Amino acid sequence: MPPLTLSIAQYPTGPTLAATLISLDEITTAASLSGVNLILFPEAFLGGYPRTCGFGAVVGSRTSEGRDQYYEYWKQAVDLGDSCPDGTGVYHAGAGDGTRETLEAIAAKTGVFLVVGLVEKTGGTLYCGCIFVDPVRGVVGKRRKVMPTGTERVVWGVGSPKTLKAIEATIAGQKVVLGAAICWENYMPLLRASLYAQGVSIYLAPTADVRESWISTLRHIAMEGRCYVLGCNQFVTNETLPLYVAQGDKPGEIVSSGGSAIVDPLGEIVAGPLWRKEGRLDVTIEDLEKSVVRGKMDMDVGAAGHYARGDVFRLHVEGLDLGRG
Amino acid sequence: MPPLTLSIAQYPTGPTLAATLISLDEITTAASLSGVNLILFPEAFLGGYPRTCGFGAVVGSRTSEGRDQYYEYWKQAVDLGDSCPDGTGVYHAGAGDGTRETLEAIAAKTGVFLVVGLVEKTGGTLYCGCIFVDPVRGVVGKRRKVMPTGTERVVWGVGSPKTLKAIEATIAGQKVVLGAAICWENYMPLLRASLYAQGVSIYLAPTADVRESWISTLRHIAMEGRCYVLGCNQFVTNETLPLYVAQGDKPGEIVSSGGSAIVDPLGEIVAGPLWRKEGRLDVTIEDLEKSVVRGKMDMDVGAAGHYARGDVFRLHVEGLDLGRG
Amino acid sequence: MPPLTLSIAQYPTGPTLAATLISLDEITTAASLSGVNLILFPEAFLGGYPRTCGFGAVVGSRTSEGRDQYYEYWKQAVDLGDSCPDGTGVYHAGAGDGTRETLEAIAAKTGVFLVVGLVEKTGGTLYCGCIFVDPVRGVVGKRRKVMPTGTERVVWGVGSPKTLKAIEATIAGQKVVLGAAICWENYMPLLRASLYAQGVSIYLAPTADVRESWISTLRHIAMEGRCYVLGCNQFVTNETLPLYVAQGDKPGEIVSSGGSAIVDPLGEIVAGPLWRKEGRLDVTIEDLEKSVVRGKMDMDVGAAGHYARGDVFRLHVEGLDLGRG
Amino acid sequence: MPPLTLSIAQYPTGPTLAATLISLDEITTAASLSGVNLILFPEAFLGGYPRTCGFGAVVGSRTSEGRDQYYEYWKQAVDLGDSCPDGTGVYHAGAGDGTRETLEAIAAKTGVFLVVGLVEKTGGTLYCGCIFVDPVRGVVGKRRKVMPTGTERVVWGVGSPKTLKAIEATIAGQKVVLGAAICWENYMPLLRASLYAQGVSIYLAPTADVRESWISTLRHIAMEGRCYVLGCNQFVTNETLPLYVAQGDKPGEIVSSGGSAIVDPLGEIVAGPLWRKEGRLDVTIEDLEKSVVRGKMDMDVGAAGHYARGDVFRLHVEGLDLGRG
Amino acid sequence: MPPLTLSIAQYPTGPTLAATLISLDEITTAASLSGVNLILFPEAFLGGYPRTCGFGAVVGSRTSEGRDQYYEYWKQAVDLGDSCPDGTGVYHAGAGDGTRETLEAIAAKTGVFLVVGLVEKTGGTLYCGCIFVDPVRGVVGKRRKVMPTGTERVVWGVGSPKTLKAIEATIAGQKVVLGAAICWENYMPLLRASLYAQGVSIYLAPTADVRESWISTLRHIAMEGRCYVLGCNQFVTNETLPLYVAQGDKPGEIVSSGGSAIVDPLGEIVAGPLWRKEGRLDVTIEDLEKSVVRGKMDMDVGAAGHYARGDVFRLHVEGLDLGRG
Amino acid sequence: MPPLTLSIAQYPTGPTLAATLISLDEITTAASLSGVNLILFPEAFLGGYPRTCGFGAVVGSRTSEGRDQYYEYWKQAVDLGDSCPDGTGVYHAGAGDGTRETLEAIAAKTGVFLVVGLVEKTGGTLYCGCIFVDPVRGVVGKRRKVMPTGTERVVWGVGSPKTLKAIEATIAGQKVVLGAAICWENYMPLLRASLYAQGVSIYLAPTADVRESWISTLRHIAMEGRCYVLGCNQFVTNETLPLYVAQGDKPGEIVSSGGSAIVDPLGEIVAGPLWRKEGRLDVTIEDLEKSVVRGKMDMDVGAAGHYARGDVFRLHVEGLDLGRG
Repeated sequence: MPPLTLSIAQYPTGPTLAATLISLDEITTAASLSGVNLILFPEAFLGGYPRTCGFGAVVGSRTSEGRDQYYEYWKQAVDLGDSCPDGTGVYHAGAGDGTRETLEAIAAKTGVFLVVGLVEKTGGTLYCGCIFVDPVRGVVGKRRKVMPTGTERVVWGVGSPKTLKAIEATIAGQKVVLGAAICWENYMPLLRASLYAQGVSIYLAPTADVRESWISTLRHIAMEGRCYVLGCNQFVTNETLPLYVAQGDKPGEIVSSGGSAIVDPLGEIVAGPLWRKEGRLDVTIEDLEKSVVRGKMDMDVGAAGHYARGDVFRLHVEGLDLGRG
Repeated sequence: MPPLTLSIAQYPTGPTLAATLISLDEITTAASLSGVNLILFPEAFLGGYPRTCGFGAVVGSRTSEGRDQYYEYWKQAVDLGDSCPDGTGVYHAGAGDGTRETLEAIAAKTGVFLVVGLVEKTGGTLYCGCIFVDPVRGVVGKRRKVMPTGTERVVWGVGSPKTLKAIEATIAGQKVVLGAAICWENYMPLLRASLYAQGVSIYLAPTADVRESWISTLRHIAMEGRCYVLGCNQFVTNETLPLYVAQGDKPGEIVSSGGSAIVDPLGEIVAGPLWRKEGRLDVTIEDLEKSVVRGKMDMDVGAAGHYARGDVFRLHVEGLDLGRG
Repeated sequence: MPPLTLSIAQYPTGPTLAATLISLDEITTAASLSGVNLILFPEAFLGGYPRTCGFGAVVGSRTSEGRDQYYEYWKQAVDLGDSCPDGTGVYHAGAGDGTRETLEAIAAKTGVFLVVGLVEKTGGTLYCGCIFVDPVRGVVGKRRKVMPTGTERVVWGVGSPKTLKAIEATIAGQKVVLGAAICWENYMPLLRASLYAQGVSIYLAPTADVRESWISTLRHIAMEGRCYVLGCNQFVTNETLPLYVAQGDKPGEIVSSGGSAIVDPLGEIVAGPLWRKEGRLDVTIEDLEKSVVRGKMDMDVGAAGHYARGDVFRLHVEGLDLGRG
Repeated sequence: MPPLTLSIAQYPTGPTLAATLISLDEITTAASLSGVNLILFPEAFLGGYPRTCGFGAVVGSRTSEGRDQYYEYWKQAVDLGDSCPDGTGVYHAGAGDGTRETLEAIAAKTGVFLVVGLVEKTGGTLYCGCIFVDPVRGVVGKRRKVMPTGTERVVWGVGSPKTLKAIEATIAGQKVVLGAAICWENYMPLLRASLYAQGVSIYLAPTADVRESWISTLRHIAMEGRCYVLGCNQFVTNETLPLYVAQGDKPGEIVSSGGSAIVDPLGEIVAGPLWRKEGRLDVTIEDLEKSVVRGKMDMDVGAAGHYARGDVFRLHVEGLDLGRG
Repeated sequence: MPPLTLSIAQYPTGPTLAATLISLDEITTAASLSGVNLILFPEAFLGGYPRTCGFGAVVGSRTSEGRDQYYEYWKQAVDLGDSCPDGTGVYHAGAGDGTRETLEAIAAKTGVFLVVGLVEKTGGTLYCGCIFVDPVRGVVGKRRKVMPTGTERVVWGVGSPKTLKAIEATIAGQKVVLGAAICWENYMPLLRASLYAQGVSIYLAPTADVRESWISTLRHIAMEGRCYVLGCNQFVTNETLPLYVAQGDKPGEIVSSGGSAIVDPLGEIVAGPLWRKEGRLDVTIEDLEKSVVRGKMDMDVGAAGHYARGDVFRLHVEGLDLGRG
Repeated sequence: MPPLTLSIAQYPTGPTLAATLISLDEITTAASLSGVNLILFPEAFLGGYPRTCGFGAVVGSRTSEGRDQYYEYWKQAVDLGDSCPDGTGVYHAGAGDGTRETLEAIAAKTGVFLVVGLVEKTGGTLYCGCIFVDPVRGVVGKRRKVMPTGTERVVWGVGSPKTLKAIEATIAGQKVVLGAAICWENYMPLLRASLYAQGVSIYLAPTADVRESWISTLRHIAMEGRCYVLGCNQFVTNETLPLYVAQGDKPGEIVSSGGSAIVDPLGEIVAGPLWRKEGRLDVTIEDLEKSVVRGKMDMDVGAAGHYARGDVFRLHVEGLDLGRG
């Protein structure tokens, strides 16, 4: 069995969606040459994270300029052509703006499994999401953040819990179960529990949180879930802020300092954190199954885990089948 | 991208179907010269709205004279040659009375997209409907009113909800999604929701409602659906009543005073209302997508809209695929 | 059968919760002397509507000052002592801050049925709500807004649809079914449909919307639901802004101009709209049942309504029993 | 096995609902003394058939007087307290106006199975229906007419096909399967087929049709369905017209001449037709099963009937389980 | 537009096929002189209805004499030369026994549209059928009874529902839609519904049913389908029994008393019934379309008929396209 | 409102239960003099944490020496005299070994609220627990760990989730809600969620975990629950190991290095971590409510929290009332 190499890409969104896709292609191609099998891009990498924006909204009103800013933001968002209102992925041929096909082509060309944070548009609504693209099977899943944070709620909708369905795949010959929680979804214990219940072995945490305390959260989740945790944030300076954001006047000022890291199932940081620059973090796992099971000897809160007390703690997630019937 | 000009035609049905088609041709041709790209004709424009008629019916009986009146009305109705009982439009060459071909020719000649209220006959039954005619593709859709009002139920059948399928088209280089609700269908919240769920950007409301309060409904719908709303009614005097209606004895008396209007996605009236005379109302839209998306920033009740609470409010329409599977 | 007098109270929130309750008592007592049987207070009347506030939030960050402002706002909010997470009202004796008991005492003393917009706190979360207080039975129901608008989402949680349960009561000897939709909930067609399905005869719309177009919405809802619609907004000047809001520098400037109104089941405005001053609007109904049924003769979209096409349009609201089983 | 005596009651609706219920009690009690086991009352017996009424409706308008007339009619209608929008009968204790309990008491007291035509109100909508009341089990079923005729459509809603569910009962020790089709529903071949498919042995046809040709329809149905058919109409004169109908000026003039009859499974009239007077028609059946099966030897269009060609003719009724899966 | 005259021919089958064809020619020629445009001959007119025959068959055995009798019957049957197993009519030149050509010649010569009941042989099997012969276009359709009655099943096969395809024609300048149901097929509600769905305006019912109750069925069908119904039976005495039938010993005894009749779309008998003698019944229709549409004003169960509730009652006939797709 | 001072006591269990109680008294008295209002003692402080013990157990056998060791351990455990099998605390006067009364006396004397980790014996079973002692009210609650870790399972039973009931108290005039999770219970997301759902503001985490990564868990919990988190461990050397543990041979060797810490609701460490020595950590809070509410502005996963998505994530804990009914 060959080893499995996971990577995170701490890079900024480009000035346009097209430019970001080119950047994504280059980063992935380079990673592929380094032997990477799976790569995670940050929250809102496609579409952009509108850091510092207020969209002209206060309680009781929105301004016309704020609406214009929203429209510019909306134009940069991705149209995946998903016809299912719940966002669980029903794609008719030709629907969408071509991004789906581009991502599938990049995955196929490089042989790298992509997990990409993005802003998805459907009608006039935007969702913060994350797409899973298999080199062979193409798009195999998608998340939509179920609860945005603070002002994000002004511009992003509330996603459906149906999108919490974990993704099974074979990568580099190893079976993996992928789950993603976006940014502060990682502070929702029942949401994380729904991922553990599905046996997630590689837990993906694209984020925009730049606090040093975020690293504690990544470590805790790894220990709690006994899985690999990949945290990935953008590195953004004044110069690489999206166009619809008013640029600050301090050249070179760092707006998002990064802090991406990879943690193993016992809570040890095995790569990063990477602060104040862009770059990639790779980690190679000889035997994922072995690493996870060794960790679960004394802590397993999965669906039937010895530590879950499933007899007394019962979680129901509307629209998501956790097998309890 | 060229602008998009929408128009409503507040005119009466002519004395015969043939005469009404000639009138429709003239109105459309004139509109075309004014740069109109899409024109809406009122409810029952072809076939006629039998205002004031009782058709000899009371509870428990119908008179022979009422049956004659019905037959005269039936003769003026349009036979589109649709062989599908649900009215979703299966047209074999040569089927019907030629109206379909005439409308397609007018649309092709003028380059104007037609939306025409009409009374459609199939067997011995009449339906109040609305046909969509693309200048290039010909007939691309048809509505049949799913619930007539009051005495209309004596002469019009109950249409199938399958006809609520929205129409996608490209008009003046801009992508539009068209949906129509006829007269008091506009008071059916679930029906309207089924149109919003399909992303309707131009909402067409042919009507026979002449109350001043109708304008409130047009404005509300625009704000609720964040779309352009076109309300179109006939202007009818004693002289232009259909032949099968007993004419009143007050020359020039207004029987239907009109009240057509066009409302933008924020609920502002941008044309009309036009009262007590016939005529056309035009409105030019620079960028339909932008207008709609700006409005949807803070109100989107579409299928996956941030304001729809699709996780808890679920609408099923028998026979209409709203994508939830 | 005595007539039924309904009233709306277009007044501002006071400087403290205690002051607002005193104001509510005075207004209700005066209304009672005028024969009022039911009175509606505006959205967020208790607790206050934080118009113009941003709470220091932009995408990606919240300021410490914004947190302080939130805390001051939270302190003014009402603790009803509801122990049910869904907000459906489980009140243990002594729970809460006493507001519940105060409202029950005012209703009992005056004999007036109260419907009061408020901001409810539970844990660290605030909900925009509306409470129903029967003079005899005490608190009989409560709404929590299921989707706040724009920046409201930064400070108000997303309420449960279970709170859409309509309230049956006997007021002035007449049977009434009360339902409330708060502010832009009135643009959610499925939400309104869930109220119509329960046979609401008095539809309450506390709001903070001050646009002239809001009147169209009130009228449309009345016509659609064939019920009385009471729209009630605050009248607020710079001087009566809540303390946690930064006061503007133009003395006497109107911040919320009101626009309260009462509409009958055929869509006619029977009181108001009241603009640019505080005050009360009363309307007396001889026979509510008769008014509603006369209107429903030709438009009834209730659960089993002749105009609902319940055979093809089916609405499911998670957690709310609409009787279809 | 005792014989089974079926009866029809050709009587008019009384001046009020209360009076009609007293009349129903008296007729049933008298029938019981004659050994009757099941009695059928005419269409709209409770609530009244608004013969000759137009309710002020013409195409395009309703008058205020018509609305008043509708309200008076609505007040006389029955509120069964059914909370299911489809009308399939979900009755919570105490719901409704007491008619349900009264009918159950009459059935229990007399030991007679009641099938009663009625006008049912739910919200502001009226349905023409028919209720089945077992002396022991109480209300066991209800129909709502799925398509009213002519002007009936102005005042009666369109019922759900779910109410076509046949009723199984044991009456006088004999097993019966009861089905009802109301008035011109008897001209809907697919509706009748749905009853035959359920094995109806006693087919109940309450009606307001007074044409001599109606007798042909009763006979045809008996031959087609190989079941007993009970046709029952009201006998009404100018004097017994409901109060909300404008009385004619010819004293004693017959408004509904009756024509009730009972037909056996081979199409022979075994009682009636009863013309131009009120009264009861009884028929005694020694062995219902035997009568039906003898008829089905050479004609059986039931679900699996030898004459049904179920291999090629397939009927689906939305919402009604006909067992085909 | 000239009037349209329809006729039925109540005559017996002759002693041989050749003799019967001569009789058919004479009857048609006479009818033509009376202005008849369409004539219907009874069930099994060509080939003969083997009334009173048992063909030596009891359960478990057939006699040799019965086989001889079947052979004699088979010899008298018509060979139309149809090469399609489903009986939908594929005729190669010269195929068959010449009957087809003879019928076409009679139709052409007289200008009368023929609808002729017959017994068709194909291989060793006989079908009870009915052929449609246009004076100009020749044979335009054919029915094969889909379910024979009682002992008919010993000698007649079970026909294909594909033959239920309605026939469109122009007769005397009027457009007609013809459909036929043979004998007790008229008790199959789904079969009749399949004819109504195709818009049949002239409904042909060749039969061998001599019961008085048959008239009720003809009238019911006319009212149900709002079409003209032509019932046609043979008049047969002991003397005119077919040769292969053992003649009774009562000279002149009537074996089949006839009972042919014509009914209009409102259920009124406009010709006949003709009992106990042979002869023709003619009826002249000024405007078929008008008569049908006037009737359908308040009852239309056609495919898209206002009374069909096509949204809930769905009929599928294997092999027959009813347009629903 | 006076400030509230919380403290943790990082000290070892004494050689006997009596000695440990004396130590507890001294530590508490000293803390009281420093203004402490609430103090937390480590996991198994009373009774002792049997670090390094195997109790002679391997799979399939236990040794006699191991049984002796267990007996010695059992003797040092606390008998609280709780007669409720679920451990929810039913104390009859005089029941138990006096420890309960001793703790209540210390709390009363010092005015300090005690939360003490202990090993509770009931019959032959031991539970790892934690007791809450109010200076005024005495014992007000008790936890029993619901799932021990690794070899702990050989000597400790599995506690009831009923003991997760949060404790409300008023300390230093401030309202607090206390909840405790013991050691690796802190890796059970549903258990923690059950505490958040009860509005815990001071979250107590007595532990025996000495890994550096434990600090990440404390910080994560604070951020997730927006509450103060007190982590408290023993500092143990070879010399202070309990008597029933075989002492190691390295004098002064540290067996448990401590690592106690206090974290605020935004995840910042405000005291500690304290490594490699014994001692106390105090933190003073000016306004607990304000601190918590400020933090919950943008993250509240409590029962009705804006970030909980309580409409879709539903937690049921057997035996624990979380208010959802």
